[in-house]
Amino acid sequence: MRWNKISDAVVRRLPLYLRVLDEIAKNGSDQLISSQELGNRAGVAPALVRKDLAWFGEFGKQGVGYEVEFLRSELRRILNLDRDHHVVLVGMGSLGVALARYNIRRYRTDESFKLRIVGLFDHDPDVVGRTYECLEVLPITVMDQFVRDNHVKMAIITVPADAAQDVAAKLVSGGVRAILNFAPVKLDVPEDVQVATADLTLELQRLAYYLD
Amino acid sequence: MRWNKISDAVVRRLPLYLRVLDEIAKNGSDQLISSQELGNRAGVAPALVRKDLAWFGEFGKQGVGYEVEFLRSELRRILNLDRDHHVVLVGMGSLGVALARYNIRRYRTDESFKLRIVGLFDHDPDVVGRTYECLEVLPITVMDQFVRDNHVKMAIITVPADAAQDVAAKLVSGGVRAILNFAPVKLDVPEDVQVATADLTLELQRLAYYLD
Repeated sequence: MRWNKISDAVVRRLPLYLRVLDEIAKNGSDQLISSQELGNRAGVAPALVRKDLAWFGEFGKQGVGYEVEFLRSELRRILNLDRDHHVVLVGMGSLGVALARYNIRRYRTDESFKLRIVGLFDHDPDVVGRTYECLEVLPITVMDQFVRDNHVKMAIITVPADAAQDVAAKLVSGGVRAILNFAPVKLDVPEDVQVATADLTLELQRLAYYLD
Repeated sequence: MRWNKISDAVVRRLPLYLRVLDEIAKNGSDQLISSQELGNRAGVAPALVRKDLAWFGEFGKQGVGYEVEFLRSELRRILNLDRDHHVVLVGMGSLGVALARYNIRRYRTDESFKLRIVGLFDHDPDVVGRTYECLEVLPITVMDQFVRDNHVKMAIITVPADAAQDVAAKLVSGGVRAILNFAPVKLDVPEDVQVATADLTLELQRLAYYLD
């Protein structure tokens, strides 16, 4: 069951809550957490925490709070993080290499991290064949077949702006349904494909607004 | 003059509009753009484009649209991108190196890109002294003095989670007022310091919600 009417603003905050609960679980400390504390640690107003979670069910008890382990496993289930997802990364420039290393190592060392990079791609013949964290870089020409064969639904794009749309189209035709895009360009994809833009220049420009 | 009452949601969209206008200006094409086209190219509903821009003045003419060069220079002024900003980057792991290279090259080749990295920092003695794009990595111990001396108001943090809070405190004490934070931790900073979180794991986890 999917909750299609829930706004993306709510969905964006769920991983923040999950991160707080993961930290608490790791430290083996409290078994209960109040919306006040959960909000403070996640950087979200406590009233909004209660409202967000109420979309998905009754997880807390008034005056008692939330059971950490229960809420944690419920959030994992809601976010589909109770199982592995295969991910490909396209574009092995310095940012692509950094992200590949980080994610592959994290997957190996953190059992709650379910996003597994299974393929690395680049168009440059000098880069194809290199190995990062025991994964060999493959040519983009075999990408859509690879995506299909490996049931890949998620991709990270770190190619230059002028190549991103073509890469996205190939990924989508292979079955990818969620893209984290680092290229500074708006991708044109079907409505049922989710794109998260990680355009760091846009973030820096926004921050400049606040400087006098 | 600052428009303190304008919500961050509005501010976030301004760089999207600016990017579209920059593209048009670069191609030397149209001198006028409708809110319809600006919205389509920026991925924002046209009515919202008009509403966002109206916060800052009357930039368009009904039935005519916006003058590209005028709106572009106004947006640059509003976003404080009509002048250079000094930026430091802290944490020269593979992500830090990738971001440093990208930003320094971009600053050198794109005259409309006003975010200038002037300092690179790391705590590791093996990394201090290395050179990237002709900038030498300095030890974190000299960072707050450097930030003060160079009028640095903006910083990018790419250190591990357990070091990020300490780095942020040092930056703020040196005068930094805007931070782009890649460490997977919520930074505790004074209210007048803006933090943008670029936590890529959170973005990927959010995307997983949309996968069935």
